[in-house]
Amino acid sequence: MKFPSIPVLLFVFSTAASGFSQNAVQDSVMMKKLYTAALTEGKAYEWLDYLSNEIGGRLSGSIEAENAIKYTETELKELGLDKVWLQPVMVPKWTRGFKEYAYIESPTGEKSVTDICALGGSVPTPNLGIKAELVEVKGIDELATLGKEKIAGKIVFYNRPMQADLIQTFEAYGGCVDQRYSGAAEAAKFGAVGVIVRSMTLSQDDYPHTGAMSYGNIPVNQRIPAAAISTNGADYLSSLLKLQPNLLFYFKQNCKTFDDVQSYNVIGEITGSTKPNEYMVVGGHLDSWDLGDGAHDDGAGCVQSMEVLRLFKKVGYKPKHTIRVVLFMNEENGLRGGNKYAEEAKRKNEKHRFALESDAGGFTPRGFSLDCDESNFRKVKSWEPLFKPYLIHYFEKGYSGADIGPLKGNIDVLAGFLPDSQRYFDLHHAANDTFDAVNKRELELGAATMASLVYLFDTYGTN
Amino acid sequence: MKFPSIPVLLFVFSTAASGFSQNAVQDSVMMKKLYTAALTEGKAYEWLDYLSNEIGGRLSGSIEAENAIKYTETELKELGLDKVWLQPVMVPKWTRGFKEYAYIESPTGEKSVTDICALGGSVPTPNLGIKAELVEVKGIDELATLGKEKIAGKIVFYNRPMQADLIQTFEAYGGCVDQRYSGAAEAAKFGAVGVIVRSMTLSQDDYPHTGAMSYGNIPVNQRIPAAAISTNGADYLSSLLKLQPNLLFYFKQNCKTFDDVQSYNVIGEITGSTKPNEYMVVGGHLDSWDLGDGAHDDGAGCVQSMEVLRLFKKVGYKPKHTIRVVLFMNEENGLRGGNKYAEEAKRKNEKHRFALESDAGGFTPRGFSLDCDESNFRKVKSWEPLFKPYLIHYFEKGYSGADIGPLKGNIDVLAGFLPDSQRYFDLHHAANDTFDAVNKRELELGAATMASLVYLFDTYGTN
Repeated sequence: MKFPSIPVLLFVFSTAASGFSQNAVQDSVMMKKLYTAALTEGKAYEWLDYLSNEIGGRLSGSIEAENAIKYTETELKELGLDKVWLQPVMVPKWTRGFKEYAYIESPTGEKSVTDICALGGSVPTPNLGIKAELVEVKGIDELATLGKEKIAGKIVFYNRPMQADLIQTFEAYGGCVDQRYSGAAEAAKFGAVGVIVRSMTLSQDDYPHTGAMSYGNIPVNQRIPAAAISTNGADYLSSLLKLQPNLLFYFKQNCKTFDDVQSYNVIGEITGSTKPNEYMVVGGHLDSWDLGDGAHDDGAGCVQSMEVLRLFKKVGYKPKHTIRVVLFMNEENGLRGGNKYAEEAKRKNEKHRFALESDAGGFTPRGFSLDCDESNFRKVKSWEPLFKPYLIHYFEKGYSGADIGPLKGNIDVLAGFLPDSQRYFDLHHAANDTFDAVNKRELELGAATMASLVYLFDTYGTN
Repeated sequence: MKFPSIPVLLFVFSTAASGFSQNAVQDSVMMKKLYTAALTEGKAYEWLDYLSNEIGGRLSGSIEAENAIKYTETELKELGLDKVWLQPVMVPKWTRGFKEYAYIESPTGEKSVTDICALGGSVPTPNLGIKAELVEVKGIDELATLGKEKIAGKIVFYNRPMQADLIQTFEAYGGCVDQRYSGAAEAAKFGAVGVIVRSMTLSQDDYPHTGAMSYGNIPVNQRIPAAAISTNGADYLSSLLKLQPNLLFYFKQNCKTFDDVQSYNVIGEITGSTKPNEYMVVGGHLDSWDLGDGAHDDGAGCVQSMEVLRLFKKVGYKPKHTIRVVLFMNEENGLRGGNKYAEEAKRKNEKHRFALESDAGGFTPRGFSLDCDESNFRKVKSWEPLFKPYLIHYFEKGYSGADIGPLKGNIDVLAGFLPDSQRYFDLHHAANDTFDAVNKRELELGAATMASLVYLFDTYGTN
């Protein structure tokens, strides 16, 4: 494109002229300040560069997670917040160990190496690995139909793809992730010796995607190892199986679960000017998976949440309520940080009014998903015109976020920040979730959008 | 993020229940078919792969442009359209020649090489290049203040950055591009010997961005060479100039303008079932700059436009009007294709009802910019609920597209497809406008969104 000229959005003036209240004019002026500060002198991208490239993947219990706690605590202190502290929480410690190894072996003995990664929480294979025939299924439901005689002694290969025609990719993820989360537990009941799961992504590529899995109530000695294979790998394997149903699959993984270790949520706050004992939270999770550097999931959400408080100080906004940034530990494989924060809030009788989580990547902001009653939802909807100049159009009821979820029952409004979701699962939990996949402007626009919602709730309160 | 569950959008049913007309239900069913076909069995990405990676940058008059004409003509014929043809048009031929070379020379003679690229249409430097002192300005306005005595014999360095706090990046571009387009013509009037222009991008990086420039009515022997420098390069140069105002800048470029050459617009059509003599056009431009492979600008728009017709055939939709895909030649440095198409339409008295251009990159679709009267605009606004499930929210009056612009006066509605603009200028006219920067789903969603608007205008007509 050469010479476009989209008309300038003179929002402040046009809204004033079109009957907006004086408050709305003040609000739009404040929002303009927040967006301008984020886009012209933002810190989020620099913080994320450090978290991603200097620290790296931050799995709970790892040295990288510890480093991220120290780094973000130091950076929050540099902002001159009223209070910065670490909230102790015990977290699970699971390690991948030496890289996994897998190959496909044809009936005539030819081997073809394929890339896999252990699912988070999986048991290791025996020292010499596992070699067995495969049984391919599209989902857990098929196991009962096949029965023990067709499954026992084999590796179950879950190969249901994410549904590409769903517009919101989180829906497609939701429709597939049971294979990863419960696939091993269910297959073990039928005597399977392992499971290989198609990666949860809509992209056709070579990255295996890890993610949490659970054995439910399966006894320790009956747990079977579980790994992810890339979408290309899954398609290749499936096509080979059609030609050679009795081919063998070998895999070895060296993961290990240790005793729980001490870790922390990182918390900072600006004390409220008129309602210091009423709390509003903005946060993301500081832990990440270990394959990439966790830039989108959820480094982005952490630095955006830190940026909200920095922006308030930068533009000189003094909130009425106490505004807290919380960097939760252990969202990926335990949710211990989210549970601990809510538990402590309850124990200390801290009245929480509003919480906002950013945990869907640092992409162009589209809106918010709100978990609240009708009256609060109507309040948010009345703010839609304020967001329109920033191309934020989506305000719907729905899911908020994993880490703030445990606050439910002790809070008026839970909100999930919704960036554009199209690219998220391309890199979710995989080695390509790295800093270079984050666009600076998209990240900054997200931070300003979050700051705007916190500002509005702080100014007008919750119902 | 781990376990989100955004509620499924049951649009067809919910709209039926909420008082939508039967037509709206039929429309939403058709749109669902279009989106599903684009996302699950689309061709746009495969076509773009070929255009980008097998053919490459397609500057008007180049062999690559010729190859792209042949390729797209062949592919359109394979779709079984009612008619596919080439519309002859003479185009300018400008070549970059051997790669440019530039360095900064300190007063003590130390040289530091810096990357530049000739602006499209620039004259070359003399064979031995140009070496001169620089005068840095923020815009054309400053030239008159400085006057001939401060500019004559020097290289003018235009260094006004794009404005980062504008949300729509096209606005920021519009606020800067005069430096590139007219900077050389204006500086020549004050006796400058060359111009170096800060690249038109919001990204801080090492890519010089080319683009069209014009000498206006400056006589040939007074034309001075013009080149772009990257944003990092511009900042470095500017900081050096503060320390050493009399440093020298050397550059050599080997570009050349040839006589016009024969080229073509590529056109295909599905003949209308009831209004075959009324035309609706969907298009992009087939030419591109030469530094990258023109994947976003505007390979994306071409393959999306081809996909619109393919989708109609795929889902069995038989349009009432004649629907044309037009792949325009020479948008970047002449607009000869767009002018020729409009001229021929007028000459043949072809009644054009609607035209849609995609020329803002293959990113997540956000909406449309409409150049039409109030009654047609109201019609489009009435379709907003149909687009909402696809997260398409932006329908505003504004600029449509360069290639379809010349149809104005002989058409009811001109529309510009608007994808998310945040990443566009990171790669616009630069070496990083390559296929790997295009996301398959984002491209496909764009094609389906375009097909939906064409479908609605075909079904309900223009006013």
